[in-house]
Amino acid sequence: MASSNPAAATAEPELLDLTIDNITPNTIRINSQSDNARLKYVMSRLVSHLHDFARETRLSTDEWMAGLMFLIGCGKICSDVRNEFILLSDVLGLSLLVDSINHPKPPEGTEGSVLGPFHTHDAPTIANGASMSTDPNGEPMLAICTVKDIQGRPVAGVKVDIWETDSSGHYDVQHADREGPSERCVMVTDEEGGFHFQGIKPVSYPIPHDGPVGKLLQMLNRHCWRPAHVHFIFEKEGWDHLITALYLRGDPYEKSDAVFGVKSTLVIDLDKVDAATAKKYGVKEGIWLLKQEFVLTTQEATEKLRDQLAIEALKKLGLDNLKLVDHLPVPEVD
Amino acid sequence: MASSNPAAATAEPELLDLTIDNITPNTIRINSQSDNARLKYVMSRLVSHLHDFARETRLSTDEWMAGLMFLIGCGKICSDVRNEFILLSDVLGLSLLVDSINHPKPPEGTEGSVLGPFHTHDAPTIANGASMSTDPNGEPMLAICTVKDIQGRPVAGVKVDIWETDSSGHYDVQHADREGPSERCVMVTDEEGGFHFQGIKPVSYPIPHDGPVGKLLQMLNRHCWRPAHVHFIFEKEGWDHLITALYLRGDPYEKSDAVFGVKSTLVIDLDKVDAATAKKYGVKEGIWLLKQEFVLTTQEATEKLRDQLAIEALKKLGLDNLKLVDHLPVPEVD
Repeated sequence: MASSNPAAATAEPELLDLTIDNITPNTIRINSQSDNARLKYVMSRLVSHLHDFARETRLSTDEWMAGLMFLIGCGKICSDVRNEFILLSDVLGLSLLVDSINHPKPPEGTEGSVLGPFHTHDAPTIANGASMSTDPNGEPMLAICTVKDIQGRPVAGVKVDIWETDSSGHYDVQHADREGPSERCVMVTDEEGGFHFQGIKPVSYPIPHDGPVGKLLQMLNRHCWRPAHVHFIFEKEGWDHLITALYLRGDPYEKSDAVFGVKSTLVIDLDKVDAATAKKYGVKEGIWLLKQEFVLTTQEATEKLRDQLAIEALKKLGLDNLKLVDHLPVPEVD
Repeated sequence: MASSNPAAATAEPELLDLTIDNITPNTIRINSQSDNARLKYVMSRLVSHLHDFARETRLSTDEWMAGLMFLIGCGKICSDVRNEFILLSDVLGLSLLVDSINHPKPPEGTEGSVLGPFHTHDAPTIANGASMSTDPNGEPMLAICTVKDIQGRPVAGVKVDIWETDSSGHYDVQHADREGPSERCVMVTDEEGGFHFQGIKPVSYPIPHDGPVGKLLQMLNRHCWRPAHVHFIFEKEGWDHLITALYLRGDPYEKSDAVFGVKSTLVIDLDKVDAATAKKYGVKEGIWLLKQEFVLTTQEATEKLRDQLAIEALKKLGLDNLKLVDHLPVPEVD
């Protein structure tokens, strides 16, 4: 086993006699030997906050070890179909925060929501009108949607990823005997920006709470429920990547979502399919109807807004010595 | 699957329309429903720092996901004999910081150092004079040590845990074909506070760098070496638990330890065993000799010092509204 960079040893500051008071600048200094300005900045903020956290709490050795064991537990329960760290990020509000920073929306644009840990890449592409559900116990729902730009013009050729739980409140990947994707599909918007599909009425469900994150919520006396929703991702070159979801009004967890994903503008009312609609779309009259218009913003407009908000926010935080490179802050003078 | 606490849903604040600016107080509020004041305080500082980190860096979605994948990687490589999260804590300076907070020392006491990820609980208890090494390639070393209190009085009956690498720079647990403990032992100090054993001259070695932490160090252009050392843990009821190590002066990594463990007072010179010592201890003349006096402090004195330093530090941090309960800060008024 050899050092990844034996030469670096000689160029280093003296890491000796480190104390509560001097360890932070010295750790930042030893982490500042690469040419990657962004990496150096991110690491310096990470180390500062990590150390400040320990200093402000006077973190005990037992708490430190409990934290490490918690992280090991999260890692051990992760699999191809379960990501406990996304779940952790979700329940700590980090996921919603990161989405808000990266995908700011003008008032006209559809707001984002949390991705969650259950998106997969094996959903079948289905044609307009097809069903994405195989659950015989779900309440049938027709969804008629359009995608427009902020001027109200249809956006064609958008790839739309859609997923929801089955009627028992579980995503397909949560079933050990999963044979293939269900309650998930990919669609492409037509020339009018439209797409329509058959699914089931979403139900509220608890996030997976048999692992470390569930235990944490229990310790915090928090419930683990999410209000009923359907997930959507909209993707087309030149347009801002939109991860969002639609939530059912009146759900008992509408105002206490365990992962903080609900926005008022994303709360919708379901309707019932009338005779004319049933005939037109080839579905039964009286089933649930979800009608929604999604509004995409261009990548250019989003990046401009994101940069503008970043500069304002950093100024407010007193971080005036930063500049944006590829939309990300780095120190003005390295 | 049921909620861990369905009743909590009704008592909750409205978690709706959360933004970059209001998500932190709302996350802290929802995390403040338990009766555990310490847990609430630790979680509030954790969430504040986590969110501030994302806000100050304007953390990108790609960086967020890279961070989550890094944590999963750390979890996946952990085993009964490998703890990648301790290693991560070590290279970020957190381990040394937590030890410094929890085990402050008066000037007379032996200073602490990092535990590292290689301590095990299966080391054999050996008698004075026995050998803890089975490595035929190591340079033999006799260690003659005493344990005293700060008044210079011997402390008998202290359990001493000792471990080091073999001559190739690997701990026994790093060998896939490990049959049992080697280069590690447990001893108990005699009536004079003494213990002596045969080991091998320690060598400098790279920390495990075939995992995520090694890749991080490489990205940061940091080397992964530790200077040659022997680990010790001292344990006796009524005395402060001392985790420390002795480092060899002149090691090429003496001032650039990858895990920040070296203190000047823990850097020692080896001597050679003379004829009289060889005869007295039944070893060969001319082998390496480590002589060291360790000074333990009482648990009472350490806790008093720790409380005093905590109060001073919190005052300096402007956290005057905290009180110590069981030596740990919690808000004065909940």
